[in-house]
Amino acid sequence: MDDGQEIFDAADTTSQAKPSSARAFIVAIGQELTTGQSVDTNSAWLSDKLADVGLATAGHITVPDELSAIVEAFDIAARLADIVISTGGLGPTGDDLTRQALARAMGAELVLDEDSLATIEAFFKKLGRAMAKTNRTQAYIPAGCEALVNPNGTAPGVAGMLGRARVFALPGVPREMKAMFLDSVLAKLPGCHGAIVHRVVRTFGLGESTLGEKIAGLMRRTGAVILGTTVAEGIVSVRVTSQGPSKAQADRQAEDMVENLRSLLGEAVIGVGEAETMSSATGNLLRQTGQTLATAESCTGGFIGKLMTDPGGASDYYLGGVVSYANEAKQNLLGVPAEVIEKHGAVSQQVALSMARGVREKFQADWGVAVTGIAGPTGGSAEKPVGLVYTALAGPDDKTAVQKHTFLGTRETIRRRSALTAINELRLRLKKSCQ
Amino acid sequence: MDDGQEIFDAADTTSQAKPSSARAFIVAIGQELTTGQSVDTNSAWLSDKLADVGLATAGHITVPDELSAIVEAFDIAARLADIVISTGGLGPTGDDLTRQALARAMGAELVLDEDSLATIEAFFKKLGRAMAKTNRTQAYIPAGCEALVNPNGTAPGVAGMLGRARVFALPGVPREMKAMFLDSVLAKLPGCHGAIVHRVVRTFGLGESTLGEKIAGLMRRTGAVILGTTVAEGIVSVRVTSQGPSKAQADRQAEDMVENLRSLLGEAVIGVGEAETMSSATGNLLRQTGQTLATAESCTGGFIGKLMTDPGGASDYYLGGVVSYANEAKQNLLGVPAEVIEKHGAVSQQVALSMARGVREKFQADWGVAVTGIAGPTGGSAEKPVGLVYTALAGPDDKTAVQKHTFLGTRETIRRRSALTAINELRLRLKKSCQ
Repeated sequence: MDDGQEIFDAADTTSQAKPSSARAFIVAIGQELTTGQSVDTNSAWLSDKLADVGLATAGHITVPDELSAIVEAFDIAARLADIVISTGGLGPTGDDLTRQALARAMGAELVLDEDSLATIEAFFKKLGRAMAKTNRTQAYIPAGCEALVNPNGTAPGVAGMLGRARVFALPGVPREMKAMFLDSVLAKLPGCHGAIVHRVVRTFGLGESTLGEKIAGLMRRTGAVILGTTVAEGIVSVRVTSQGPSKAQADRQAEDMVENLRSLLGEAVIGVGEAETMSSATGNLLRQTGQTLATAESCTGGFIGKLMTDPGGASDYYLGGVVSYANEAKQNLLGVPAEVIEKHGAVSQQVALSMARGVREKFQADWGVAVTGIAGPTGGSAEKPVGLVYTALAGPDDKTAVQKHTFLGTRETIRRRSALTAINELRLRLKKSCQ
Repeated sequence: MDDGQEIFDAADTTSQAKPSSARAFIVAIGQELTTGQSVDTNSAWLSDKLADVGLATAGHITVPDELSAIVEAFDIAARLADIVISTGGLGPTGDDLTRQALARAMGAELVLDEDSLATIEAFFKKLGRAMAKTNRTQAYIPAGCEALVNPNGTAPGVAGMLGRARVFALPGVPREMKAMFLDSVLAKLPGCHGAIVHRVVRTFGLGESTLGEKIAGLMRRTGAVILGTTVAEGIVSVRVTSQGPSKAQADRQAEDMVENLRSLLGEAVIGVGEAETMSSATGNLLRQTGQTLATAESCTGGFIGKLMTDPGGASDYYLGGVVSYANEAKQNLLGVPAEVIEKHGAVSQQVALSMARGVREKFQADWGVAVTGIAGPTGGSAEKPVGLVYTALAGPDDKTAVQKHTFLGTRETIRRRSALTAINELRLRLKKSCQ
């Protein structure tokens, strides 16, 4: 061996660098995962959330819907960690075997949990549907365990002890799993070490790299406040993770960072918080100013209306819209003159403006927002390629504005970007008039 | 224990349905995976590719960059499977420990592989850069192993035996990993044991448990064809995994099972294949019959239009729609009489029907589809609770139909379910008229 060995020996010390606190192991259960038909995103999500409360993840293990394999996975996880969280295998069908596997690993019987049965029965009653016999199996849990309420489905979770490890069995459907983890598991985990708090600053209009350059100075800071950027559904989010000896101090640090980000990023900031979306921010501005909106959509096919009505209470400001997919609809329902379509084409600034004005008038709204474009994959030409989109605004006092865009990507991406851009233009206009 | 136990015992037989051929275990190595910063997509990709050559995956395990944890993962994988494939930890930095871990698990020394060193040196020379000292460590492999060439980077892979299992250590960068697997690993795997093929049958309208009961007889069959169910965005999918001595036979078995599922599940089947959605299936029926559609939406706010225009070429059959979120829009744009709204309320079967008829006429479409309901979270009453939704159809020859639903869940769930149900009613009607 030569100097290579020396480097290995030095590196070897990382194996001693284990956190001293409790560690978790995640068990993902499902045929669709081990056949490669689905990618397991639950384990990463759980590890991220565990890190938030100061708990490290010792590993993930994924096994198919086979009883012996699941028992084995529980045994391995309980041997290697103090907290075991499983996802999947709690459904009502014959390939859902997590309850049986956990009972076998614990050496316990499955017993009927009357509360869970009542909850499942009530779920079906409210639905007005007969409960299938197999749903009854979902009310069984290993003796000595506790059932965890599932606010979004029938499958209750299970909490108990497996050897010296705390074990939590959660559903595999991400929405159900996440709600159950946050509502029922988090509070049962061993006490958090110091406080970690998060903020999410959501932005639109800057690319991730441009945004990264703008905040590079803040990102280079090490220590108590860490920044990270993620992109999802056209929105670039800056995640602020602040760690402090107390929650009050962690909160203070996080708020200071959010203010720094706001002043660096300006009007690209939609808002702060996971729940803040383009449509909620815009809807709130409409509500605050007592104004109303109507939408006229061609290539987005109703996507803007869908987004604007995602938040509850949207009827305070959203009156409705016209999806004028066919040219006749643009003429008959929105009053776009046939000769304008003929002269400039359905995808043109003239038609976009006429749609915005038309829908505003039709609905007697304060604002009309319109989109016309070519979302592809076919229908493009050299002059008007796929991705060419016009967005238009018509507002009080005959104010109008139209913008031309060339979006890249799939049909879905072009449509989403078109819808968000159209709403964003209204948001910026409303912000300006609020100042 | 009562009849619940009986169901468990019956289900238990699935644990005997193990393929008899060699099985693989995937080991993913990386701090970024166990902290939840990245999602592991390598393991699913490898499982999918292994299935292509008839090898089933017994499981995946993910561990951080810690020597003892990686050794443990190799031990577990080699105990549970015949083939072990690891990804990650082959880089040149101190936290890359896969070589050392593999050597320790094998009880072997790390030895310099001169060919690998020459390749790495040539790589840097070609780049015109000095080779860092740490890159030299990448040329060490456990004694008795073979180095695998990395066409896309510096880190060579490793192939060897760990106990009775064949082991392959690959880089974590997906592009490097995939190339090395396809170029160097595939040919070294135990002779292909037939083929594994997949089908996905997508359904709507049956709950997962009711569907499970219907196909319970097929699910209990052991052997060559395995079924599993998953739910996503309101669609229940039945996954068919078929293993056979040849791809032709595996395909034949899969097709037979798909036919069995079709006849058991009837009109709940939307179609076969990941790409088949409610709107593509319905759109195709409209296109085949040369008919057109217009939509009138209240609580879904444009979601139906958005879904119907998700597939490219939707202009063949979708003319457009009206989002009549405000009552005035229902009257002015769809011609719903004010007195009908006043007498029965905006959420009523009369208004739903009137919206469907109105939009059909307004757009001169063959079919009008309408939805009105209470998506929540507020706006419900004892008489008309959140989740109460009416869907209506108006078609040729004055055919109309209206249905009352009570959906549970969040606003998003209620809206998605409403939109899918409305489209599904059109799909069923079109299917009937096609027969």
